[in-house]
Amino acid sequence: MSVFASIQKPTLLLNEAAVHANIHRMAEKALQNGVRFRPHFKTHQSAEIGEWFRPEGVRQITVSSLEMAAYFAAHGWDDILVAFPVNLREIDALNGLAARVRLSVLVESVESATFLGQNLAEPVDAWIKVDTGAHRTGLAWNQPKPLAALTHQILAAPKLRLRGLLTHAGHTYPAVGSKDVQAVYFESVARMAEARDVLVDAGARDCEISVGDTPGTVLSSDFGPVDEIRPGNFVFFDSHQLLRGVCRSQDVAVALACPIVARHAERSEVVIYGGAIHLSKDFVQDGERRVYGLAALPEGDGWGAPLEGAYVRSLSQEHGVLHVPAPDFDRLRVGELVCILPAHSCLTVQVMRAYRSLTDGRMITTLN
Amino acid sequence: MSVFASIQKPTLLLNEAAVHANIHRMAEKALQNGVRFRPHFKTHQSAEIGEWFRPEGVRQITVSSLEMAAYFAAHGWDDILVAFPVNLREIDALNGLAARVRLSVLVESVESATFLGQNLAEPVDAWIKVDTGAHRTGLAWNQPKPLAALTHQILAAPKLRLRGLLTHAGHTYPAVGSKDVQAVYFESVARMAEARDVLVDAGARDCEISVGDTPGTVLSSDFGPVDEIRPGNFVFFDSHQLLRGVCRSQDVAVALACPIVARHAERSEVVIYGGAIHLSKDFVQDGERRVYGLAALPEGDGWGAPLEGAYVRSLSQEHGVLHVPAPDFDRLRVGELVCILPAHSCLTVQVMRAYRSLTDGRMITTLN
Repeated sequence: MSVFASIQKPTLLLNEAAVHANIHRMAEKALQNGVRFRPHFKTHQSAEIGEWFRPEGVRQITVSSLEMAAYFAAHGWDDILVAFPVNLREIDALNGLAARVRLSVLVESVESATFLGQNLAEPVDAWIKVDTGAHRTGLAWNQPKPLAALTHQILAAPKLRLRGLLTHAGHTYPAVGSKDVQAVYFESVARMAEARDVLVDAGARDCEISVGDTPGTVLSSDFGPVDEIRPGNFVFFDSHQLLRGVCRSQDVAVALACPIVARHAERSEVVIYGGAIHLSKDFVQDGERRVYGLAALPEGDGWGAPLEGAYVRSLSQEHGVLHVPAPDFDRLRVGELVCILPAHSCLTVQVMRAYRSLTDGRMITTLN
Repeated sequence: MSVFASIQKPTLLLNEAAVHANIHRMAEKALQNGVRFRPHFKTHQSAEIGEWFRPEGVRQITVSSLEMAAYFAAHGWDDILVAFPVNLREIDALNGLAARVRLSVLVESVESATFLGQNLAEPVDAWIKVDTGAHRTGLAWNQPKPLAALTHQILAAPKLRLRGLLTHAGHTYPAVGSKDVQAVYFESVARMAEARDVLVDAGARDCEISVGDTPGTVLSSDFGPVDEIRPGNFVFFDSHQLLRGVCRSQDVAVALACPIVARHAERSEVVIYGGAIHLSKDFVQDGERRVYGLAALPEGDGWGAPLEGAYVRSLSQEHGVLHVPAPDFDRLRVGELVCILPAHSCLTVQVMRAYRSLTDGRMITTLN
């Protein structure tokens, strides 16, 4: 019996074969380039899916919270980087975890380094967060004084081991096409190399460079002077990456199966049971359109190619409005299912909290 | 000890007094206008908060899924409207629930009415969903033929009891100011009254009008020819309603307490531990700005007035970037807390899944 027959409400489908292929491709690329592969597990958040990385030689991982670190530590991972500016209010949880695993934290201010120097009970690896242009957080790559001051403060903290510089070049996400993404990636890496000189001058003996974004690591043919890559989204990809030319449609490994609940022929739209609480409210800006997801039809034990011109144009709490041009519109019926490739798979996983495998229909759980 | 002292990570705070006041005000208004008050429980999703409506005489409620209906049925509610186009794939769950409570469903196509006619095992109330201008879903108010055809089909279905017409005038949300909102509300209600004439001509004996949006029900001085109101968001309000002039800042009853993890004086911004997984990715368009939340500081056992000009300008999975102009910027320190008034409280509750009461610090759970 097809996995679709038993689906009654929005269900997150997982194409295991596509996941394995995505992991293998990135692991091979890291190996060929001689960089450490420390995948970000915030995308899948699943102990079971985490196991699929081990045969590829992965022993070190990235997470985005101490809670997620504790979950994966409980599932046998013992070298974990929390890629989030250290939250001083969680010092007890941090010390507890650092007693059990090799833990890396991000530091980006002298105040935080001072606090850690005074309050850490266990040795912890420290990475200096650098802003190479995304302007979310981190020290500016081109301001040597704060970089040197932070380096000194970390070197002075007895339990902090300075590992190097880390960035998330989030400004590759809006870039379109391989050439633009690579340009942003290489500019970011060159800036990291400049910042590294500052750290070395300030007395850092060991200073690695860690970078993290999926577009840059997927599309760049080589990684430049980088020691570690931390992509996360590549494990599933999504409509965002597809529309930006980062992946092919067959690489997208998750889709939300949604019942069709209404049909509006006059505007070539169907209403689906599948809203912000299932997909998240994130969207991709694609020219004039806000794309909350692309659509495909169930096909055998999976889903087919995205329907030409079809996209989710709006989401409310439980509803989605899906525009589907003719002739595909005529294939959609109230009571049937349509598969939505999410705009942002990380957030869809976060709200759905479980997958149903296309392989055997079993449920695969996450941290939540 | 203040509730804030023990907070280590993003925590959804609940101002119980504000919730009680919001409920009381709406219940009074419904009573004075002689309309039935059937609040939408999708905003709070909590059995405990649901109880706070009973002293106001509320016996009938609205929810947005069968799962939510089952949860509140288990907590003693026995007259429940599922304000979502009926999902044919959940017919078994629907029959199961209809055997235990008085259940109302939304029907908007002849196919759905036919299916229900053939598959319902229990009597169910049917409301025809009408589109009065929001263009999400429902039959167009000004197309008598489909309205009459659906009326006939419902009247012919032995287990369906036609109750009337229902709309969600979602197009009041982008409206700004009391006058605009009231104009949209009254236009919507007038269109419902026109559609009702079609139903009566088609043989409907009983035909009520049910409307649902928070801006319209809060700002309209009277409700016009309406029998039932179903607002939901008014129980907490949020930055969206505040920026649109629908509520006052002291009416906003939830805020996310977020640790400050980084400080960027050169751009007058702090980075908070509080991202899309805590607030949802929804925003309010406020002129040129996308506002993902407004900010206030902890004050006594609650939070103060929103900081002038401060707003969350971007959210990623766990991070938020909060712009705070001087002089308030100087009051923010790494390791301290800031309270974010969500852009859209319904979605924030959905992702956070629990509240901490300002009254006594206890946790209040939700369906999830």
